[in-house]
Amino acid sequence: MYTYSYLFDFISLLLQKMGFSEADSAVCARVFLAAELRGIRTPGVIRLADSFKLWAGGRIKATPDIRIVRESPSTAVVDGDGAIGMLPSIKAMNIAMEKADAVGSGWVAVRNSSNFGIAGYYAMMALERDMIGLACTNASPLVAPTFSAVPMLGTNPVAMAIPAGSQPPFVADFSTTPVTRGNFTLAAKKGERISFGYAQDFEGNPTDDPTSIEHGGSMLPLGGDREHGSHKGYCLGAMVDILSAVLSGANFGPFVPPMISYLPLLERKSGKGWGHFFGAMRVDAFMPVGEFKERMDQWIETMRGARPVKGQDRVLIPGDTERENEERISREGIELISQVVADLETIAEKTGVKLLK
Amino acid sequence: MYTYSYLFDFISLLLQKMGFSEADSAVCARVFLAAELRGIRTPGVIRLADSFKLWAGGRIKATPDIRIVRESPSTAVVDGDGAIGMLPSIKAMNIAMEKADAVGSGWVAVRNSSNFGIAGYYAMMALERDMIGLACTNASPLVAPTFSAVPMLGTNPVAMAIPAGSQPPFVADFSTTPVTRGNFTLAAKKGERISFGYAQDFEGNPTDDPTSIEHGGSMLPLGGDREHGSHKGYCLGAMVDILSAVLSGANFGPFVPPMISYLPLLERKSGKGWGHFFGAMRVDAFMPVGEFKERMDQWIETMRGARPVKGQDRVLIPGDTERENEERISREGIELISQVVADLETIAEKTGVKLLK
Repeated sequence: MYTYSYLFDFISLLLQKMGFSEADSAVCARVFLAAELRGIRTPGVIRLADSFKLWAGGRIKATPDIRIVRESPSTAVVDGDGAIGMLPSIKAMNIAMEKADAVGSGWVAVRNSSNFGIAGYYAMMALERDMIGLACTNASPLVAPTFSAVPMLGTNPVAMAIPAGSQPPFVADFSTTPVTRGNFTLAAKKGERISFGYAQDFEGNPTDDPTSIEHGGSMLPLGGDREHGSHKGYCLGAMVDILSAVLSGANFGPFVPPMISYLPLLERKSGKGWGHFFGAMRVDAFMPVGEFKERMDQWIETMRGARPVKGQDRVLIPGDTERENEERISREGIELISQVVADLETIAEKTGVKLLK
Repeated sequence: MYTYSYLFDFISLLLQKMGFSEADSAVCARVFLAAELRGIRTPGVIRLADSFKLWAGGRIKATPDIRIVRESPSTAVVDGDGAIGMLPSIKAMNIAMEKADAVGSGWVAVRNSSNFGIAGYYAMMALERDMIGLACTNASPLVAPTFSAVPMLGTNPVAMAIPAGSQPPFVADFSTTPVTRGNFTLAAKKGERISFGYAQDFEGNPTDDPTSIEHGGSMLPLGGDREHGSHKGYCLGAMVDILSAVLSGANFGPFVPPMISYLPLLERKSGKGWGHFFGAMRVDAFMPVGEFKERMDQWIETMRGARPVKGQDRVLIPGDTERENEERISREGIELISQVVADLETIAEKTGVKLLK
C-alpha cells in the first residue's frame, strides 16, 4: 500500500529525472494516479514503465513543443510534438474550455501524441467550470471490426462528464469493447477461460482462449458478434478513431504505433503519433446552470430509483463505482501489483530515485 | 411496390390535408421515405399512421411555431412547439451548420418535439457542406439500464456522417441496443424466439421471449448483460438522453411520451415533448478539405482491405448496407408491408386522399 502523496512525489521526481519540467511532471503524476484512485488500472501506474522505455528509446520527448496548428473560434488542432499523452491532452482540454467560454463550445483534435492515460480525467476537468466534457482517443490495434479477422482499431475509450447539483456528477468512461484487455491477461495468469463474445481466433472463430490475441486473434467490439450488435460497437470505435486521428493528422486504425517499447515501429504510417479528441460545452449556453443541475439531479434520482433486477440491490449511475473506489482508495492507499512495483524499482534504479517499499 | 415519387406525392398530399404547409409536407415525406430507401424500416412509413393519430388526437401541431429559445455563437436550443419531429430537426440541423460555417462547429438541442424518423438523414445533411454531422434522439422508454428491471430509456439512436473523397461517405446510424424493436415484432409474428442478450423479463431474468416487453419485461442495452458490457450501452443511451432532453428541456428517460397515440400520456412530466441533439463540424476548421477527404479514403480502403473472417467475403464500412439498399430500392421501388398499406388506406379514406394499390 502506498499513499497518494508518496506515489505522487515518486512519479514526479522520476519524470523530472527524465527531463520533464516540474509542472509537467506533476500533471502526468496526477493523471497516472487518477486512474489508480478510480480503480481503472489499465491506464494507471502500470503504464509508467512503458512511458519510461518509450522515452529511453527516443519515442517520447521530455520537453515537447506542443502547439496549436490550426484553429477556428470553436475548434483547434494541437500537435503534441511526440509528447507523453497527458501533456497535449491537458492543453487541448484547456483550449476546448476556453473556446467554450468564448463561443459556447470548443472541440480540439490532437495528433503526434501517445497514450494519454485515463480518458475520464480530461472529461472531468469540465465539471468545475459547469461544462459538459468529452474525451476520447485511439490506441494500438487490438480490435477487429465486424467481419474482419484482423485487429484494425484500438479499444478506443470514450468519456463524458456532466455536472449535477446535489448529486455527484455523471461520468461515463468506457472502452468500446465488452471488457478491457486487462481481463485477458488476468484470466491467462489464473489459467481461466474468458467469456465468449470477447475475442476471436486467427480465422475469426469465437474463442474463450485468453491468449488468442497473442496468436493472431483479436478482441471484439462492444456487442461481441454481429447478432448482438458488434457492428454498433465497431461504429463507435470507428467514430473515435476518425475524430481522433483522421481529423487531427495522427495515425489511424492499424497504423497507431505500439505503446510497448520493444515492439517495432510500423513501416507504414498514416500520420503522426496517436490521436485524441476533446470537447467542452458550456451548460449555460443551453440553459441556466441552476436549472440544468436540478434537472440532472432529477435524472440521476429517477434512474437510481428504478426497481433493480433480482439479485442486485441498486441501479448504478455512470461514475458511481469509480467515485466509490476513489473515496476508498484515497483513504486506504493505493495497492500496486508486484509486477508494477518491480518495474518501478527498475526505473528507480536507473534514474537514481528511490522507491520505498 | 410503389415508386418513390408516387409515395412522395401521396404522403405530401396527406400531410397537406392535415394542415401542414406544402414545404413542411415535402420535408416530412422526404424523411419518411429516406428510411424506406435506406432499408431502415422502423422509423419509416410505418410511423405515418402514428403521426396521423397523434395529430388527430391533438398531440402534434400542423402549424407549429418552431423557434430558437437560447443561443450562443456555437450552440442553440430549439423549441419544436409540439411539431412532428422532422420539422424542428431539419431547422436545428440547419442552425448547427450555419453556426459551423461561422465559428467552426454548431450544436443544437431540441425540445418539445416528437419522433424525428431516421437519425442518419440529419447527420447526412452535413455531407454536402463538407461537414461532419451528428444526430441523436431520445425515445419512449423500452430499455432497462444495467441492473434495472424497468425500462427507463429509449433505444436512443446515434448517427454520424463523415465526408470522404472518391469513396462514399462514412455513415454510422445505430440504436444503442443490440437490435431494434422491429426484430421482436417479427419474431413474435413468426412464432420464433429471439436471441438471448436482447431482452429480460419482469424480474430481470434473461429471456428469449419476443413478447416479453408486453409482459413487463425490457429491451437490453448494447452489450446485453453486465458481463458483455451492457453498462457501456447504458452509458451511451444515457448520454443521448441527457444531451437530447436534460440539456434542451424535453422529457427525459421514462417520462418521454409514447409515440403510439392510444397509449395514455404520462401524468408526470420532466419537460416538453421528445428531445434531440444535433451537431455539425466544418472539416476545414481542422484540416484542408482535400487532405481530409484523401485521409478518409485511406481509412475506408484500409478497413475494407482487412482479411475477412471465414464465411464472410468483406468487411463493411458503416453506411455500406444502407447505401446499397438505397441504390436497389430506388431502382426497384418501395415495398410496404400489408399492415402499412392498410393503415395508409384508412388515413387516405379519412382525409380524402386516394392511395392507388
